[in-house]
Amino acid sequence: MPTVKLWTDAEVSANPCIQAVFDDIRSTRKSDFVNNFWRALANQPELLERTLSSIKQVMIASGVLDPLTKELIYIAVSVTNNCSYCIHSHTAAARAKGFTDQQHVELLAVIGVASETNALATALQVPVDPEFTVK
Amino acid sequence: MPTVKLWTDAEVSANPCIQAVFDDIRSTRKSDFVNNFWRALANQPELLERTLSSIKQVMIASGVLDPLTKELIYIAVSVTNNCSYCIHSHTAAARAKGFTDQQHVELLAVIGVASETNALATALQVPVDPEFTVK
Amino acid sequence: MPTVKLWTDAEVSANPCIQAVFDDIRSTRKSDFVNNFWRALANQPELLERTLSSIKQVMIASGVLDPLTKELIYIAVSVTNNCSYCIHSHTAAARAKGFTDQQHVELLAVIGVASETNALATALQVPVDPEFTVK
Amino acid sequence: MPTVKLWTDAEVSANPCIQAVFDDIRSTRKSDFVNNFWRALANQPELLERTLSSIKQVMIASGVLDPLTKELIYIAVSVTNNCSYCIHSHTAAARAKGFTDQQHVELLAVIGVASETNALATALQVPVDPEFTVK
Amino acid sequence: MPTVKLWTDAEVSANPCIQAVFDDIRSTRKSDFVNNFWRALANQPELLERTLSSIKQVMIASGVLDPLTKELIYIAVSVTNNCSYCIHSHTAAARAKGFTDQQHVELLAVIGVASETNALATALQVPVDPEFTVK
Amino acid sequence: MPTVKLWTDAEVSANPCIQAVFDDIRSTRKSDFVNNFWRALANQPELLERTLSSIKQVMIASGVLDPLTKELIYIAVSVTNNCSYCIHSHTAAARAKGFTDQQHVELLAVIGVASETNALATALQVPVDPEFTVK
Repeated sequence: MPTVKLWTDAEVSANPCIQAVFDDIRSTRKSDFVNNFWRALANQPELLERTLSSIKQVMIASGVLDPLTKELIYIAVSVTNNCSYCIHSHTAAARAKGFTDQQHVELLAVIGVASETNALATALQVPVDPEFTVK
Repeated sequence: MPTVKLWTDAEVSANPCIQAVFDDIRSTRKSDFVNNFWRALANQPELLERTLSSIKQVMIASGVLDPLTKELIYIAVSVTNNCSYCIHSHTAAARAKGFTDQQHVELLAVIGVASETNALATALQVPVDPEFTVK
Repeated sequence: MPTVKLWTDAEVSANPCIQAVFDDIRSTRKSDFVNNFWRALANQPELLERTLSSIKQVMIASGVLDPLTKELIYIAVSVTNNCSYCIHSHTAAARAKGFTDQQHVELLAVIGVASETNALATALQVPVDPEFTVK
Repeated sequence: MPTVKLWTDAEVSANPCIQAVFDDIRSTRKSDFVNNFWRALANQPELLERTLSSIKQVMIASGVLDPLTKELIYIAVSVTNNCSYCIHSHTAAARAKGFTDQQHVELLAVIGVASETNALATALQVPVDPEFTVK
Repeated sequence: MPTVKLWTDAEVSANPCIQAVFDDIRSTRKSDFVNNFWRALANQPELLERTLSSIKQVMIASGVLDPLTKELIYIAVSVTNNCSYCIHSHTAAARAKGFTDQQHVELLAVIGVASETNALATALQVPVDPEFTVK
Repeated sequence: MPTVKLWTDAEVSANPCIQAVFDDIRSTRKSDFVNNFWRALANQPELLERTLSSIKQVMIASGVLDPLTKELIYIAVSVTNNCSYCIHSHTAAARAKGFTDQQHVELLAVIGVASETNALATALQVPVDPEFTVK
């Protein structure tokens, strides 16, 4: 259960400011479906707008990393932060971008090995090699 | 400072079992440099071998994700787990694989936005949309 | 589902030691409602008592931070630790202390920006400026 | 050591775009001191600008939470995320806003108790009470 | 809900490679019950095999730490990582190995105090005493 | 560098209340050495006393878990929380209680495997089996 109200389409349509952001979400993603994350953020118009703006700039605008790679990085962060909602939404987003089962296996394997070696390096308090320094 | 001794090459050469693993590290990576992580794990031969075996299987064997993408996922996990050693070693590894400054910027931007939205989704306890379910 | 039994009022009343702590919870909070956290801790009388004592000393005794500010700090920690139970219970506690929707928005915004900049500072391994040193 | 170059004032002055952001930082904070976080982000102009814009909107613009309370929330998140840089910079920022030693003690006490009870609630997997639901 | 399909016994029996691993799980644990973790990993045969192999080597092979102590360490990590599934499965595994209620209380108390003092030491950025150095 | 002053013995001796706690630490541990954690907490007498009291009750008072097992659990939590100070101090404390190199290896192996499987179970969002329920 959420800690705030989730806005229905009817409630959104009664608030032109929120409606404009939802219209933007729908046209940006070329889909009528607006997921619960945005329906929760609708309680906070400024935060809703700023979050959408960040997502558009970082995840949707084209850059040097392809969209699927960005989703895999997003999933890796979300798994490590244990954000159940984000794991589900970005695994679905990756699938919509062509994420294959074999890529999923490899993503999981890398996340698993990184988690294990992170714990080992931390437990051993391994000092950073001078060779890794930025020149 | 580490919580265990870091093995020097001289100490490694006096132990054939550890020497064999270090030879394997050097030939796998085609480089004479063996970084401190392995010199710390040398105190634990079984763990050393199992860790190298996992790294070879997951990070080095060819698969459907390219080697640089795997490094980016590794960095994303290491940043989120706050493993200073792993952030340094895998940022260096990514650079050795052609990681550009522009890719670094985008990696950081995705990690940053994912961390922010993870926190928001968690604070709001947003329920997972049924649309995200695996069929 | 919990990993231990949740004590009902009937079970509590059969154990004078637990009953005394539950009476203390009710009188401290001036409310009959005892939430599940305490019903789970009731399996561990010493831990139950020590936890209540800490909560009373830190959260309830008056000090220089006002009660609502302490709840906001508590929520910030709970979100970052991803403790679903504590997010719900302390968001409710904050509301009972007058937490407004606008304060909620700002709390979320600060938690979000802190999470993002934490990740960036960690990924960049920014060295601490000498200006920040305690004199 | 950072994973990127830290920009000196001389390097910044050779890049009008970065210089403009640094001017903005100095005038926003009414101080000549620009800390290492911004000198690291200077490698990434877009991220530098977006981060400054978020900080101005969330931390500096006036709202319903006072500036010191926002710093305490920021510190709470940074401690829980274990971001050494951010703990130092925001503890210094809080002090500059009048943070007293006694407030520091209480902040630490709340962070400590929240961390402990987060761990207990998670270990016990306490189910959320229906009383905490948003109506 | 999982992000992948959970394999039923009927589906497993149609795939000899997965069936062999499930047979191994059953004979290793001397029990017919195969829990959902393995049914999810069955989508990824290589990862399934490598994970089982690690578990057998680390958790099941006899060593100098007794099996129950290893479960307590596992639970401590899982609580701190907030892995709900692992908290449930390893609390059950510990009980199957004779974990008493009194041991559970003490485990919880240690996890709680460690979480609190971790947060305090981090907030205070306490420098490591030279006395703790490995000679 | 710490965020607060570390109290020297001379400063402690000028404050009878702090001196009494330091005397207690020395007699409880039968050692003249008082490590930096307590010298940092000395700025906060109430928190100093409450923390020492919790440590005595949980870590030092005899119970059903032996003292070394409690240190291993403490280390496991500290590694997962990435508390460098606590990893060092409790690895040293474990050694003082007879912790062998072989036990260290196994502790690391369990922490590593738990971290990996935690990440996998979280990424897969594996549903808890009803068999794990407390009756």
